[in-house]
Amino acid sequence: MEKTKIIMDVDTGIDDAIAICLALGSGAFDVLGITTTFGNRKVDVTTKNTLKILELIGKTNIPVSKGAAKPIVKEYFSPEKSIVHGADGLGDMENPLPEPTIKETGMSAVEFMAKTLAESDEPVTIVPVGPMTNVATLLMTSPELKPKIKEVVVMGGSMLKGNASPVAEANIKQDPEAAYILLHSGVKIRMACLDATWNGYVSFDELEDWKTDNKLSRIFYQMCGIYSEHYKLRMKNPGLAMHDSMTLAWIARPELVKSEDYYVTVDIDGRYTYGMTVTDVNRVTGEKPNVTMSTDVDRVPFINMIKEAIARLSSEMK
Amino acid sequence: MEKTKIIMDVDTGIDDAIAICLALGSGAFDVLGITTTFGNRKVDVTTKNTLKILELIGKTNIPVSKGAAKPIVKEYFSPEKSIVHGADGLGDMENPLPEPTIKETGMSAVEFMAKTLAESDEPVTIVPVGPMTNVATLLMTSPELKPKIKEVVVMGGSMLKGNASPVAEANIKQDPEAAYILLHSGVKIRMACLDATWNGYVSFDELEDWKTDNKLSRIFYQMCGIYSEHYKLRMKNPGLAMHDSMTLAWIARPELVKSEDYYVTVDIDGRYTYGMTVTDVNRVTGEKPNVTMSTDVDRVPFINMIKEAIARLSSEMK
Amino acid sequence: MEKTKIIMDVDTGIDDAIAICLALGSGAFDVLGITTTFGNRKVDVTTKNTLKILELIGKTNIPVSKGAAKPIVKEYFSPEKSIVHGADGLGDMENPLPEPTIKETGMSAVEFMAKTLAESDEPVTIVPVGPMTNVATLLMTSPELKPKIKEVVVMGGSMLKGNASPVAEANIKQDPEAAYILLHSGVKIRMACLDATWNGYVSFDELEDWKTDNKLSRIFYQMCGIYSEHYKLRMKNPGLAMHDSMTLAWIARPELVKSEDYYVTVDIDGRYTYGMTVTDVNRVTGEKPNVTMSTDVDRVPFINMIKEAIARLSSEMK
Amino acid sequence: MEKTKIIMDVDTGIDDAIAICLALGSGAFDVLGITTTFGNRKVDVTTKNTLKILELIGKTNIPVSKGAAKPIVKEYFSPEKSIVHGADGLGDMENPLPEPTIKETGMSAVEFMAKTLAESDEPVTIVPVGPMTNVATLLMTSPELKPKIKEVVVMGGSMLKGNASPVAEANIKQDPEAAYILLHSGVKIRMACLDATWNGYVSFDELEDWKTDNKLSRIFYQMCGIYSEHYKLRMKNPGLAMHDSMTLAWIARPELVKSEDYYVTVDIDGRYTYGMTVTDVNRVTGEKPNVTMSTDVDRVPFINMIKEAIARLSSEMK
Repeated sequence: MEKTKIIMDVDTGIDDAIAICLALGSGAFDVLGITTTFGNRKVDVTTKNTLKILELIGKTNIPVSKGAAKPIVKEYFSPEKSIVHGADGLGDMENPLPEPTIKETGMSAVEFMAKTLAESDEPVTIVPVGPMTNVATLLMTSPELKPKIKEVVVMGGSMLKGNASPVAEANIKQDPEAAYILLHSGVKIRMACLDATWNGYVSFDELEDWKTDNKLSRIFYQMCGIYSEHYKLRMKNPGLAMHDSMTLAWIARPELVKSEDYYVTVDIDGRYTYGMTVTDVNRVTGEKPNVTMSTDVDRVPFINMIKEAIARLSSEMK
Repeated sequence: MEKTKIIMDVDTGIDDAIAICLALGSGAFDVLGITTTFGNRKVDVTTKNTLKILELIGKTNIPVSKGAAKPIVKEYFSPEKSIVHGADGLGDMENPLPEPTIKETGMSAVEFMAKTLAESDEPVTIVPVGPMTNVATLLMTSPELKPKIKEVVVMGGSMLKGNASPVAEANIKQDPEAAYILLHSGVKIRMACLDATWNGYVSFDELEDWKTDNKLSRIFYQMCGIYSEHYKLRMKNPGLAMHDSMTLAWIARPELVKSEDYYVTVDIDGRYTYGMTVTDVNRVTGEKPNVTMSTDVDRVPFINMIKEAIARLSSEMK
Repeated sequence: MEKTKIIMDVDTGIDDAIAICLALGSGAFDVLGITTTFGNRKVDVTTKNTLKILELIGKTNIPVSKGAAKPIVKEYFSPEKSIVHGADGLGDMENPLPEPTIKETGMSAVEFMAKTLAESDEPVTIVPVGPMTNVATLLMTSPELKPKIKEVVVMGGSMLKGNASPVAEANIKQDPEAAYILLHSGVKIRMACLDATWNGYVSFDELEDWKTDNKLSRIFYQMCGIYSEHYKLRMKNPGLAMHDSMTLAWIARPELVKSEDYYVTVDIDGRYTYGMTVTDVNRVTGEKPNVTMSTDVDRVPFINMIKEAIARLSSEMK
Repeated sequence: MEKTKIIMDVDTGIDDAIAICLALGSGAFDVLGITTTFGNRKVDVTTKNTLKILELIGKTNIPVSKGAAKPIVKEYFSPEKSIVHGADGLGDMENPLPEPTIKETGMSAVEFMAKTLAESDEPVTIVPVGPMTNVATLLMTSPELKPKIKEVVVMGGSMLKGNASPVAEANIKQDPEAAYILLHSGVKIRMACLDATWNGYVSFDELEDWKTDNKLSRIFYQMCGIYSEHYKLRMKNPGLAMHDSMTLAWIARPELVKSEDYYVTVDIDGRYTYGMTVTDVNRVTGEKPNVTMSTDVDRVPFINMIKEAIARLSSEMK
């Protein structure tokens, strides 16, 4: 099978880190580069985290380009410590990953995306798993490159309920206007939304295996302490949701994710609903569908994909 | 069993008409009066429809008081013909019900409610199955009567998806500010919302029995032509949702309706979300629950309650 | 000259107190009653203040009816101490006015208004100088009484700049939905808005005369300490704006107030503009004018009207 | 006197055309380049119009770079014919200007701005006289260049009343989010707003002189037919407002424009107030001033500056 050419856009983050491993360990992708954004943490931190992960897994050839430090219109407020990802964004491990020795490209995320798309012979898939600021800015500054975008497969949104407000999902809540720009841009979009990603979890029992599976899984086991607590105590989830990874699994093995095409827009002016993906589930608006929304995931094979990718990367680690 | 004292607040409407029959034919309620509101049709029409139904079933002693002609803040736009209830609000039957000979009380809905509550020895349950304008106005003009309200059991709202917009339910969309006032009033509230009421349907097969069951069911069978088409063709529902009746079934037989307590507010300023019930399903706001939301219904016994009430009323009809 | 029949609707308040004196001391009005609302202070306080003033000036026959305790839709937050009117709403004088011995009618403001309009042979003018909650509720509950309303002359709104936010005036900001209801009700409306009322001031020098003019003016001199500071230090105004009194002066002597007819609505959903009176000064909307907006006042004769009314009342005081 | 280095950002437009002449004919500016945006007309038209004007006045060495075709977040709707600038944006003259033979640079507006700022030894002034989309995008994609921006002097906004809605000015109404981004960016900003620009008019009498003054003024006289009608009949203005030129006059001769520093934000979510510049004229927000707002202009010397620049350019025309 031919590898899918992708640019990942991350705010690394624990589940971003795992998604990077899935992208680079699954064998299904040709990762042209990784761009970073504010989100789970400030962009300086998420960029450094991305470099740390690449160095950990020995993929130091992947170009990393730093992107947006704030949302397009509003401000970004970063709490001292993420209740999901810790203060350092990678779980505040007792033995944290070492400072990276590799560096970012020096290009901005948007410049890197534009250059890569322009130079590519075939259309490229963009995979944003944080706020959609970089890709929205690309669409704004280089609309002529739209034909070079095969599709945008994002982690974000929700049809039923949110995690950042009663009705808003965190990636979209952090830059609703960016999501609005993306959704109304005319490019092909798949959204790995909460309705499915909450079902794509590593169960707490399964996680125990990571402790001993291999060197890399052991590191993730340690990284997942706070993340695990969050899903157990606060979310009452049966396990740790692998939100960001679902984008990649969906591209590599479409049969794992159930979906439906809907008209989706983003609320950018409501007091209670700011950042909500308003999905025309009942088809009452008469608008043409613009997004393929995930509705469920085949959990076990999805989680196995992640496990296998980690195992493969681990075996290649020095 | 003691009968529950209720005031019904209706915008009659086909499923309102059936709900009136359930209220008066089930033997479970002491219906102190019926108040009317704009909604499915203009208030003059819904009032007349209410009188027609009472006359049809021989319950001419129930006092009917006309209420709000428009929402509290915004305007009301009545289409020439309701796609659900027809132009006359009662299905545009070939042989329409005769003009009523009985009259409304001459009191306004709010005056009637205030007087009835003030004179009642025990708290009274209010059952709004249309826009919540009358009860919101009552709470505004007579806040001292709150202790006389046992609870408000409304048909309205939605946790997942709407029927009047992607996210808004029709009764609330028609007067979001009224719903906002009610929800933040501090009175005890149960909402029979779409998440459950769509499951409380008479199947298209079951409806065929109504054709021959008894005199009254036959009339409703004829009345349900347009209503049936709506659910079959447009909503792709497996039957005719008995939205309004669920309030009464829930009061009389609480075991039939599954529910959950949530914090719920109403969006009154969003472009896409105006009239949406924003439900804190994930409990991220830290706000105390203020509404008991229906999540599902035990369909068969619910529908049987309606059938039996109609049969009983039919047997008493001359 | 025939006296104009009015109902005053107040949130007493220092300038409300002076407006009550103008209404009862000018000889131009037949004050059918006074209704009260929350606003400058809680409604219990503004009601008591109204009774205190009436008792002070010996007009104990004027019926006072207590009205709204909160806005129609949103909540009311009362600061511990008004920076304009003090904690007691009447300037926190060293020798405060005694507790009133007279009582309110026991009717609600809306009931009193409805009854008075219904029983009046001729249309009555309503003069709200606080939040417009009572009159909006009246229009909602008794729309059939609109022909009995000659006009509503309110103190409120602004074309240029606000006093409660950059663009919102305080009376409207405290209940924007009420103002919206009033403005779109179809009744005849004059707004004594800030653009004119800021020009209708007692200069700081003129105020010094009040110290010795007469017994009543001396009390107002003492009452105006905080109020005077507010206009001197915070607003940099050349004197104490007599906002509320302008409504009455405009009715009694229309030649004193310059005005223009405009289409005016109220913003009820903007983050920064909530409660702003959006005035179509440039006539770009194509909407028909619905409000006569004051644009300036002839200051000296206006202030003299107030002075004379106070002098007359003082001479009648025991 | 040293010339001020500027980049003009235009949506040419009649008053933009005159502003270009003022910039290039006054001798006060070193025009590093002109960028274009949608606004008065589509960006393809405004770009062509800009080239036409430069060719007309023989300034074909000024680089022109095409910019945004739509607002950052929302859509752009271009009427078939501008009621102010005509269908072609340059007054639909009987003898229209010839198609330009010069071309734009091929760089985007944002690329040109970024490159020019980066390469400049000293900070550069940016002068947007259309929607602020290009400069907002620059601030978003190259925040590191902020120190290279001396100040942004825009034509836009209003403190009192709008021209595109009762409260919104056209340049800002066409991309409120862009204006919001600019205003909250921390760069130094002067706004030539309607409160002053409406006073900066060529009177209808004065315009008659343009008919014979010189070759270039004669062309502008012909171009101003529709524009003149607009101000005479629709706006009842005493002349043709030279909105866009005021930015340049203010830079070259600051003494001509009265101004005040205020905190200003842009409403981006209100139904009636979308695109309004909310100005804290009364200083009630406690926010630090971020904009210098024009409050009036010394009309005669301002108009003379324009006249002289046109005369000088005319004398140099072949």
